Amino acid sequence: MRRALELAARGPRGTNPQVGCVLLGPDGTTLGEGWHRGAGTPHAEVAALADARERGADVRGATAVVTLEPCDHTGRTGPCSVALLEAGVARAVIAVPDPNPVAAGGADRLRSAGVDVVTGVLAHEGARVLGPWLAAVRRGWPFVTLKIATTLDGRVAALDGTSRWITSDVARQHAHAHRAQVGAVVVGTGTALVDDPSLTARTGDGSLVEEQPLRVVVGQRDVPPGARLRSPGGELVQVRTHDPARVLAVLHEREVRHVLVEGGPTLAAAFLAAGLVDEVHAYVAPVLLGAGTAAIGDLGITTISDAVRLVPTEVLPLGPDVLVVATPEHPPRGTADPIARTSTEKES
Amino acid sequence: MRRALELAARGPRGTNPQVGCVLLGPDGTTLGEGWHRGAGTPHAEVAALADARERGADVRGATAVVTLEPCDHTGRTGPCSVALLEAGVARAVIAVPDPNPVAAGGADRLRSAGVDVVTGVLAHEGARVLGPWLAAVRRGWPFVTLKIATTLDGRVAALDGTSRWITSDVARQHAHAHRAQVGAVVVGTGTALVDDPSLTARTGDGSLVEEQPLRVVVGQRDVPPGARLRSPGGELVQVRTHDPARVLAVLHEREVRHVLVEGGPTLAAAFLAAGLVDEVHAYVAPVLLGAGTAAIGDLGITTISDAVRLVPTEVLPLGPDVLVVATPEHPPRGTADPIARTSTEKES
Repeated sequence: MRRALELAARGPRGTNPQVGCVLLGPDGTTLGEGWHRGAGTPHAEVAALADARERGADVRGATAVVTLEPCDHTGRTGPCSVALLEAGVARAVIAVPDPNPVAAGGADRLRSAGVDVVTGVLAHEGARVLGPWLAAVRRGWPFVTLKIATTLDGRVAALDGTSRWITSDVARQHAHAHRAQVGAVVVGTGTALVDDPSLTARTGDGSLVEEQPLRVVVGQRDVPPGARLRSPGGELVQVRTHDPARVLAVLHEREVRHVLVEGGPTLAAAFLAAGLVDEVHAYVAPVLLGAGTAAIGDLGITTISDAVRLVPTEVLPLGPDVLVVATPEHPPRGTADPIARTSTEKES
Repeated sequence: MRRALELAARGPRGTNPQVGCVLLGPDGTTLGEGWHRGAGTPHAEVAALADARERGADVRGATAVVTLEPCDHTGRTGPCSVALLEAGVARAVIAVPDPNPVAAGGADRLRSAGVDVVTGVLAHEGARVLGPWLAAVRRGWPFVTLKIATTLDGRVAALDGTSRWITSDVARQHAHAHRAQVGAVVVGTGTALVDDPSLTARTGDGSLVEEQPLRVVVGQRDVPPGARLRSPGGELVQVRTHDPARVLAVLHEREVRHVLVEGGPTLAAAFLAAGLVDEVHAYVAPVLLGAGTAAIGDLGITTISDAVRLVPTEVLPLGPDVLVVATPEHPPRGTADPIARTSTEKES
């Protein structure tokens, strides 16, 4: 399974899950390996079967070790459960059950056909590799990362609105690399109009990476024709609402699994107040301003005991800056205990 | 010299410098060692001579390796230069020249008496051990550390003024340990009246450490009789001014070498705007408030290019919090290049 998880991690993050599959012979030798390379390409199981065929291996009676329950529906590719059955696989070892109601049922079909199925093997590690995709598909709306880039005294811009640059090159490159991993980058119309951001994922030399996230503007005001948001990059999507849940519903509809909310303070506060933030990425620069725009708008919090408390998962120095990655102590509903749920399903 | 620096570091930080001394025989054997244990106790050289005497060693013709130029004046103890001469020391190796005009001249006196004197050996390391003391004595006012303890969005208190607790136990214990290393802790009257802090240095179990910093309140308003600032701890000093330079002059007069400015935002801004901050200790907690008191008051900065930029020297996770230690890109006048100055003096 560890090998299958390694293979899974090779795939791209996106609409489809990262999945890996290893086919083992009865004596434990590897017959084939595969991983999912993104929407429209063969699933990991099918890729592993093809690999075994190329190697001339006989997969009858083999064990399929796969990081996510094989799908049982026909999308752009056929059901993997059927492919495994037709190949004569005798045993399936699965890390994480498929949370997608449309695709689930693969384990059941295999069992009904007499295949020995074990699920929940390295389920924690499997969930970690699936990351935001798992949470998003399980609960039916995208995983939300809130990004802020502030001075040590919590400012995201000076009094005159200038903010280039608070954080360092190193931190900005890190943020760009992160944009390349999400399905959509979201800002409010205020930020779109004042900062005129491009919201593209760029490499260190400024060129665009291949896969660009959707560029989403939330609010009523129009994005002007000459805006950088209309320059080459991801598709520009305007969602004319102030309701964060509505924004996520629209993006879920478009199969976006991971959303990066980049500001400004009003939008950040709206997502936080709605309890829809799964993770905060706070880039903190060793700069003091004493005045200017605060990172987070009004949350309606008046006393310290009502503060939004986060649990840090990573503290990463980036040049002179520090990135603090943290998750809310009270995560969005429907998100908690993905592993507990996996374990329960293992028992059923 | 490295051994002498190790010995120096054993002494307490305070009004007097941390100094170490090793006496070496002509064959390189150690004859005696000493370090300064604080105001009113023997200087490192005299302690090393006493140690040699106890060991029955003959120090005539010996080399004195000392981290700071031996003093040449009579204070609570006699001049070390004379003590070394009377003991018959033939050679002196010195890391850092004495920056104190009252005490300097030891190297010259030794040279005049025929002693072979070398200065500037491991001068950088020597300056590091002397730390804030060196900067303070050189320029004639205390070294200033500004401490802030904020949420990730730069708040030091919620809208209703509550701030207990933003940072964790671990971070607060770290801050208490730091208080024990400074000569004075300074707050404005606003903080004194609203927060009613005790400003004592306490150990993990809440008991007072032996050496307590002065507790300094800056501003016109009186500290009420029942205030925690009047509870057991360091002497309470009120400086009725709003001028940070005046505060530092008063504290320099009292031989305070290191001042910790703990707030509030107005006092912090006054020290920053006056260019009198040598170092910032920013404790950042993974908490969001969205509103409340900002860490730093108005600095008169309106655009990003005028921001106070700092150079981080340390990023230290403390429980869930992070401590960023940073020094201003433009340090206070008279502070820069202490080592360059040491090297110059070595040449003279």
